[in-house]
Amino acid sequence: MGIPELLVQLVLVLAVAKLGSELAERLGQPPVLGELIGGMLAGAGWFHWLRPHDVTLHALAEIGAILLLFEVGLESDLGALLRVGPAALWVAVAGVVLPFGLGYGVAALFGLPKLAALFVGAALTATSVGITARVFGDLGVLSRRESRIVLGAAVADDVIGLIILAVISGLAGKGSLSLGEIAGVIGVAFAFLVGSILIGQRCAAPMLHAARRMRSRGTLCSAAIAFCFALSALAALAGLAPIVGAFAAGLVLARTEHRVPIEPLVKPLADLFIPVFFVMMGAATDLSVLSPATPDGRAALGLGAALAVVAVIGKVIGGLTCPGRGIDRWVVGIAMIPRGEVGLIFAGLGRQQGILTPSLYAAVLAVVLVSTLVTPPALKRRLQALSDADEPASEDTRGLVESAR
Amino acid sequence: MGIPELLVQLVLVLAVAKLGSELAERLGQPPVLGELIGGMLAGAGWFHWLRPHDVTLHALAEIGAILLLFEVGLESDLGALLRVGPAALWVAVAGVVLPFGLGYGVAALFGLPKLAALFVGAALTATSVGITARVFGDLGVLSRRESRIVLGAAVADDVIGLIILAVISGLAGKGSLSLGEIAGVIGVAFAFLVGSILIGQRCAAPMLHAARRMRSRGTLCSAAIAFCFALSALAALAGLAPIVGAFAAGLVLARTEHRVPIEPLVKPLADLFIPVFFVMMGAATDLSVLSPATPDGRAALGLGAALAVVAVIGKVIGGLTCPGRGIDRWVVGIAMIPRGEVGLIFAGLGRQQGILTPSLYAAVLAVVLVSTLVTPPALKRRLQALSDADEPASEDTRGLVESAR
Repeated sequence: MGIPELLVQLVLVLAVAKLGSELAERLGQPPVLGELIGGMLAGAGWFHWLRPHDVTLHALAEIGAILLLFEVGLESDLGALLRVGPAALWVAVAGVVLPFGLGYGVAALFGLPKLAALFVGAALTATSVGITARVFGDLGVLSRRESRIVLGAAVADDVIGLIILAVISGLAGKGSLSLGEIAGVIGVAFAFLVGSILIGQRCAAPMLHAARRMRSRGTLCSAAIAFCFALSALAALAGLAPIVGAFAAGLVLARTEHRVPIEPLVKPLADLFIPVFFVMMGAATDLSVLSPATPDGRAALGLGAALAVVAVIGKVIGGLTCPGRGIDRWVVGIAMIPRGEVGLIFAGLGRQQGILTPSLYAAVLAVVLVSTLVTPPALKRRLQALSDADEPASEDTRGLVESAR
Repeated sequence: MGIPELLVQLVLVLAVAKLGSELAERLGQPPVLGELIGGMLAGAGWFHWLRPHDVTLHALAEIGAILLLFEVGLESDLGALLRVGPAALWVAVAGVVLPFGLGYGVAALFGLPKLAALFVGAALTATSVGITARVFGDLGVLSRRESRIVLGAAVADDVIGLIILAVISGLAGKGSLSLGEIAGVIGVAFAFLVGSILIGQRCAAPMLHAARRMRSRGTLCSAAIAFCFALSALAALAGLAPIVGAFAAGLVLARTEHRVPIEPLVKPLADLFIPVFFVMMGAATDLSVLSPATPDGRAALGLGAALAVVAVIGKVIGGLTCPGRGIDRWVVGIAMIPRGEVGLIFAGLGRQQGILTPSLYAAVLAVVLVSTLVTPPALKRRLQALSDADEPASEDTRGLVESAR
């Protein structure tokens, strides 16, 4: 039957996720770190003799990634980016172009094939909205102008990153693309995002309105999830990653009046599936490929270290060039450093398609880990230095922590 | 990859479930009927060319069955049965023994093998708590003494039915069982239920207490689901169906102070997974095996009709023998008729283990459908006849509808 084995696996995955995230949280680190490292340790341990149901567990992990991007979309406010305006967009574009270019360059220097180098560069583009918002919230500075710029930029670089991913997926499918074909993929991705938001907005509101008037239980939750899955499948049909559709679905629903009742319904689903995704991500990482004892391991370790440096530098420079007055550009630069969910998803796609070798995958994962470990202490230090000159963080900014989570 | 196909299937399953249940609801029928019939029609239609991801979809359906019994357990009140006391227990025992015996007899008369006849009898034992509570609620009579007896009896016959299932599963595994072995299986099942409730109660409260004090998000939901999955897997290890463990987990958590915060977290999960289970149940039914055009079809149709008659008669006689004064025994008997979730799960297990042929499975499903279709109008008629002599249903009983769902 296999169902009991699947249940045992799910219990173990949930236990690893919760213990890991709780430990990370108590150490002042983002919970996702704990889930990844827990998954790595678990993967090195008992995951080897517990794999009969891999297909289902992987499908559940994929649903986790889809629900994650759906939630990010639901919590994103397209309007907010437009309000902080050109500064956020500048930081986003600079923070995508620099890490992408530098990452590609480093990977090419290490002799990687072009496609793999492009995947590595793409995995470094997207700042983690969740981790950034969390760090700002913990420090009680969500209402600072820098915070709003960074959050706006983090949403924008998700969108740009997803478009880059679409182009690279197209490249991976066809082997090589002409400039015209690249423009075509960008066009399809852009058309999908804009089209699904415009058309989705027209369809979603009446559909959800009808769902809420239905008498049978659970229709609103089912309608929202079905909408997310449908756009994910449509994105796949359009040659994009399913997560692009999930993100678009979240953005669309965020702009309807139904966002408030939907969020608490999606939360338990996300709480259950997203940790499965991160633990499986960690479990898929073979840390021994980064061992300094072998020549291959040393090379992978060197690549990881070089990538970590350019990942940090790229985002910090992007932040330092931020236009506008009365802004501490170092705060913006440091806050843009953490990579997370979206970068991991890119790396996972590259591994699935056989473009990233296990050691490359491990190197990218190491970069994500380093970028998230480095940010909280650095940001705390910079903000404390500022607040010695500034007024202390007022009480009411603390209240914003909750609303940003 | 297969993920887009899985997403499309899930969207279609959810759409079928919601349209079916809404239609059923508007026609004054239980929503589960709509999901089953929708699944049947879908299974006859596009499910044939949409099956690459069957493994995962079936695993999701199994998780649906587990969450369903978990929810039934969560909503069951062991204390309530003890309060209505011996009358409910009598109705439960009579309502299990008669349909089981009559169903077994009819199946044996139709020349079925012993094991298949036992499975058919067992599938007729459990009254659907959900459907019964719903019908009473819709009629505004949840506070009547008959209603409390019936709900108590429905919970008790779930437990008895699950023990019968454990015995039959043991039989199916070993081919034949001596009386001592049957006693052993009953002992294990009973020991598991009592033991998991006693030990679970000691472990669950501190575990959930710790989960609620954790700082990372979603720990309470994950802990509750992990507890449910762990007991389900344990039940499977003890030779029982996983759903027995899920039911025990629900009963245990229902008796802790954490039930109130857990219920809204389990609901969205249940809303998403349970319809998958019922639609897949319906889709697995090949209605053509009940065609009167073939000799086999006529035999299956005859068996289904005979089983439907004894399924109704068995429960009504059980109700008519209910002890106590001032009770309308016809109301008790009629209200015990609807079979649902648990009967379908039994039939599904029998089909999976190859004990029930497709036509037998279809016959059992037809009995479940008939029993649920018959009850609402019959109960309404009897209660209206009573209320012409009685006082009209008061306003405050309407309020109980919500709490019983």
